[in-house]
Amino acid sequence: MARRERGGRVPSDRAGAAFEERVARLAAAVPPLDAAAEAAARDRHARLIKPAGSLGRLEELGARLAAMAGRCPPPLPAAPAVLVAAGDHGVVAQGVTPWPQAITGAMVAAMAAGQAAVNAMAGVIGARLRLLDVGVAAAPAPHPLVLPANVRRGTADLAVEPAMSRQEAARALLAGADAAGELLDEGADLLVTGDMGIGNTTAAACLVAAFTGRLPAAVTGRGTGIDDATWELKVKVVERALARHDPDPADPIGALASVGGLEHAALAGLLLAGASRRVPVVLDGVNADVAALVACAIAPRVAGFLVAGHRSVEPGASAALEHLGLSPLIDLELRLGEGTGALLAVPIVRCAAAVLSMATFAEAGFAE
Amino acid sequence: MARRERGGRVPSDRAGAAFEERVARLAAAVPPLDAAAEAAARDRHARLIKPAGSLGRLEELGARLAAMAGRCPPPLPAAPAVLVAAGDHGVVAQGVTPWPQAITGAMVAAMAAGQAAVNAMAGVIGARLRLLDVGVAAAPAPHPLVLPANVRRGTADLAVEPAMSRQEAARALLAGADAAGELLDEGADLLVTGDMGIGNTTAAACLVAAFTGRLPAAVTGRGTGIDDATWELKVKVVERALARHDPDPADPIGALASVGGLEHAALAGLLLAGASRRVPVVLDGVNADVAALVACAIAPRVAGFLVAGHRSVEPGASAALEHLGLSPLIDLELRLGEGTGALLAVPIVRCAAAVLSMATFAEAGFAE
Repeated sequence: MARRERGGRVPSDRAGAAFEERVARLAAAVPPLDAAAEAAARDRHARLIKPAGSLGRLEELGARLAAMAGRCPPPLPAAPAVLVAAGDHGVVAQGVTPWPQAITGAMVAAMAAGQAAVNAMAGVIGARLRLLDVGVAAAPAPHPLVLPANVRRGTADLAVEPAMSRQEAARALLAGADAAGELLDEGADLLVTGDMGIGNTTAAACLVAAFTGRLPAAVTGRGTGIDDATWELKVKVVERALARHDPDPADPIGALASVGGLEHAALAGLLLAGASRRVPVVLDGVNADVAALVACAIAPRVAGFLVAGHRSVEPGASAALEHLGLSPLIDLELRLGEGTGALLAVPIVRCAAAVLSMATFAEAGFAE
Repeated sequence: MARRERGGRVPSDRAGAAFEERVARLAAAVPPLDAAAEAAARDRHARLIKPAGSLGRLEELGARLAAMAGRCPPPLPAAPAVLVAAGDHGVVAQGVTPWPQAITGAMVAAMAAGQAAVNAMAGVIGARLRLLDVGVAAAPAPHPLVLPANVRRGTADLAVEPAMSRQEAARALLAGADAAGELLDEGADLLVTGDMGIGNTTAAACLVAAFTGRLPAAVTGRGTGIDDATWELKVKVVERALARHDPDPADPIGALASVGGLEHAALAGLLLAGASRRVPVVLDGVNADVAALVACAIAPRVAGFLVAGHRSVEPGASAALEHLGLSPLIDLELRLGEGTGALLAVPIVRCAAAVLSMATFAEAGFAE
């Protein structure tokens, strides 16, 4: 019996095909991890002036950083950069959140003005911040920190129609990749995902369910902190959207188009761009984890360049990370987004790289 | 039936009494937490431009930092300092570790030369480093980073006699307090505990068992990574030491003297000194956790100024933290000591303070 054709509800077109070809070229540019550098890091860790294995998961992480960079010791990330991709969601019309859509644009303005949590934390961590308007409903005022790359002013309501066209999904992805490329060109050597978008955990739940096969009720969270009645409504919206669109995990652009968000697409692009340039990317919460599901479906090698910054309270985050085989570095019950959880993990990543440059017993002149 | 007198095996003397009086004065100087500042922080967190509670445990931590500092927002720790207290342990004669005692002094030299894990990580975190020779067997070469405060050149074998005299325990504690005071005078506004001492997890296990009442087998770990046979021997050594000395948790100086280490005493002094000056102290692994048990037995208010940096693999660490009511910020399976686990948590502490200075909805001019 032939497998039913899926994801056909979002048609492609000639212009869209050209964008999808660019995505495919980006995917093809993602290199494999360097197994020799990883082995060298494991070997070096066993010879450093400390009991073997005593740095626990920092040792695994360091070996993977070596594998990403293709050398051991790996470079110490010196210039982390966080990109906050912002977009709005037509599904808010279903009542899945008590927050008005205008909050997305207002928060972008607040971040540009240095007033938000991500600003406070990026300052502590020493991370450069950039905001990407890839889908905000109300156009943000021009600001040096805000990259204008709006693909559409918010998605359509995924409960009743595709969130966007395939072309829009591909363009949003490329906008994220371009923004990441710009940060890398400016010298960033570690990328951190951030997101802002009222309603985006509903779209994220749809994508997690589509990619992991889990039930909507198991991957739908409380987002900003909704009550029981709103959560039940949200689960039903996710169930209906999945039934209507039947997103196909083998067609990640189609899945994004039918039930995703413009910021999810953009972050998927950021992951592809980082990986294609061998730069580690630290994932924040569920919206980043969803972008990772998409990016790894486009180019499985991306997974090797991802570091799960933290475990968000959102159940979809844990489901996505498990699916990706990633174990989060931090679990402090955050559920804000903006990149905040990932920023907390940046010093851990830097330390994991730094310890591989400490002395071996031989280098330190120990007798034994 | 009268309770048997305990801890009497380590006699006091007149000079020792004078040192213990200084410890008591230090204990009396520890202030209570500021409940009003803590309440102000909780209130402020509910008004910041983010969903209430969305920063999870960072919010609790921020409120406690406000309570420590006595103001909201709390100051952003700008100058963290890690003190590595180093001491040797006569109990190594029992064969509890395969590492020779000379490693302690060699590691102090390596840290002074910038070659160890704590150096790599303190560099990343931006923490000043100081080493305290409070009990190293082989006198370290003079070095600007090494504070010479040796009380005795390693403890006696706690399996067969008291590890040290009460006077030595009190003097080691005061040496740690003085070293911490020096760092604070130089401008440090966040203290981080570090330790180095071959054999110290055996002494730590004795102290955890004494203070928490747990069985030796439940709180004795593998330290640097010992094999099953050595671990079984180590448990027996801890059992014998406890049976011989019967350390009394109500007499923390006596407990230190009978089964502790000079670096445990010094770190207890650091905790008292930090708390007495309202400065947060980030605990590293089991040796710091043990120092916290001692310091909180001397002055229960110290607990309010402690932040559990990470959960060490050592089972005694979890037992001690649970006893103290502290929940670690990080759990990455580290078991190195030196302050490495605590250093990873420093940026989290800084972020918890920083976010309390972000804008409220009113400050950012949000409508609602």
